[in-house]
Amino acid sequence: MVTDLKSEVQDDLLRVAEALADAARIAVLPYFRASDLAAENKISEGFDPVTEGDRAAERAMRDILSVQRPDDAILGEEYGRTEGTSGLTWVLDPIDGTRAFLSGTPTWGVLIAVSDASGPLLGVIDQPYIGERFIGGFGEARVVGPQGTRTLKTRAPRDLSDAILFTTFPEVGTLAEGQAFQRLSRQVRLTRFGLDCYAYGLVASGQIDLVVEAGLQAYDIQGPMAVIQAAGGVVTNWEGGPAHQGGRVVAAANAQIHAAALDHLSGT
Amino acid sequence: MVTDLKSEVQDDLLRVAEALADAARIAVLPYFRASDLAAENKISEGFDPVTEGDRAAERAMRDILSVQRPDDAILGEEYGRTEGTSGLTWVLDPIDGTRAFLSGTPTWGVLIAVSDASGPLLGVIDQPYIGERFIGGFGEARVVGPQGTRTLKTRAPRDLSDAILFTTFPEVGTLAEGQAFQRLSRQVRLTRFGLDCYAYGLVASGQIDLVVEAGLQAYDIQGPMAVIQAAGGVVTNWEGGPAHQGGRVVAAANAQIHAAALDHLSGT
Repeated sequence: MVTDLKSEVQDDLLRVAEALADAARIAVLPYFRASDLAAENKISEGFDPVTEGDRAAERAMRDILSVQRPDDAILGEEYGRTEGTSGLTWVLDPIDGTRAFLSGTPTWGVLIAVSDASGPLLGVIDQPYIGERFIGGFGEARVVGPQGTRTLKTRAPRDLSDAILFTTFPEVGTLAEGQAFQRLSRQVRLTRFGLDCYAYGLVASGQIDLVVEAGLQAYDIQGPMAVIQAAGGVVTNWEGGPAHQGGRVVAAANAQIHAAALDHLSGT
Repeated sequence: MVTDLKSEVQDDLLRVAEALADAARIAVLPYFRASDLAAENKISEGFDPVTEGDRAAERAMRDILSVQRPDDAILGEEYGRTEGTSGLTWVLDPIDGTRAFLSGTPTWGVLIAVSDASGPLLGVIDQPYIGERFIGGFGEARVVGPQGTRTLKTRAPRDLSDAILFTTFPEVGTLAEGQAFQRLSRQVRLTRFGLDCYAYGLVASGQIDLVVEAGLQAYDIQGPMAVIQAAGGVVTNWEGGPAHQGGRVVAAANAQIHAAALDHLSGT
């Protein structure tokens, strides 16, 4: 865990995480809003486009890791698992929100985490088009973007009836999962859709109270999880257990709103 | 109409439109993601927050118009109608997407149009946080933003089954309007939610094919309408008639996809 890592190791991990995000930004941006985007379907049914930008960004990050952190493992959305010996794993999603990316929406992101067996220690949500980077770990979280550098701090507790809830698709997960989401949605002030990983940045920024998703992969949540936890928030599965392996996830601004959300989601 | 206006008048209108967008950007940005945002409810039921930023941005635009275009009328979302004598009206929505604004989402926009009795001649969709401006009129359209300046051109025709459709809320308008939207949504490749006016910029950019909304005001659509038309698209109501007074609106990348969408929406 955090306290076992020396400060110089933390500094190195932060430096490498920023280098990965820089490299991914450069690799992926030429593909964004390019008119000849060569999308293809990764799975035969459904719509899960993968772009050359997705692959280019993951390769750029893996190239850096192979030189600067050769003993760490890698779990990447595009190129799978590479074993390591250090006990640390870099968890990479080069484009979270491929539908957003293909639509031209500036709410996809590059997700990066470095994790040990207990979960993510450090995470990045980078939005290359806006030039905005949420980064959190080791007890500190900040955003660097159009408004300069700001410390990230989640919202103070408030009633569900005053809360803002986000999810990506109105039909959250399975039928039962969707019904649980609707139960929660009926309690909150405002429910909004369609932001992909950017919504986690809004939780960390103190702008919204809750993000609820289902069917996530580890690489979808570990980066955001570290950012939100470092900003004061709580990220678990719908039963209150660990969320770093993905699945059903609730990201909350604080423990009180987290508990209130679980009342409507748990037991699904 | 356009051909009746001399080039120097067009240049002046373009210059003033840019000046309004610049002033609105400066006025509104300090309120975005400010933690002490003084939101209030404009209507007693429902959630329609208005911020001080909304009012500050409209005042800044009106101040410029009172000096530089004193003979033109103004229709603003916050301060209503000011009469003029020129036959031209500036149609202003200082923050389109107040829910997005309050949530911290970078998909709200400042909407500006200058119109005559036939509809908008020139329009602007400005996203101050990203620093991105879509502007179109008099047969030309461009976006200025993180990728520099690019000419806007809508997508070429394609089947509905390959199309991308956006709307802001899953429950579009009334029950009958929502059902019509669902009929259309079932025909397209991908439906996405939650972008407010930013989605019109994506139609103009050639990224998506359709935006369908209901219950719009004139100031919600006139700016986007001019941008999309100048980029090659088609904007009408659900019956194919004029849309510049608001109501039920379909914004389409081209005449073919527009006709295909109307097949599912008209008669509602």
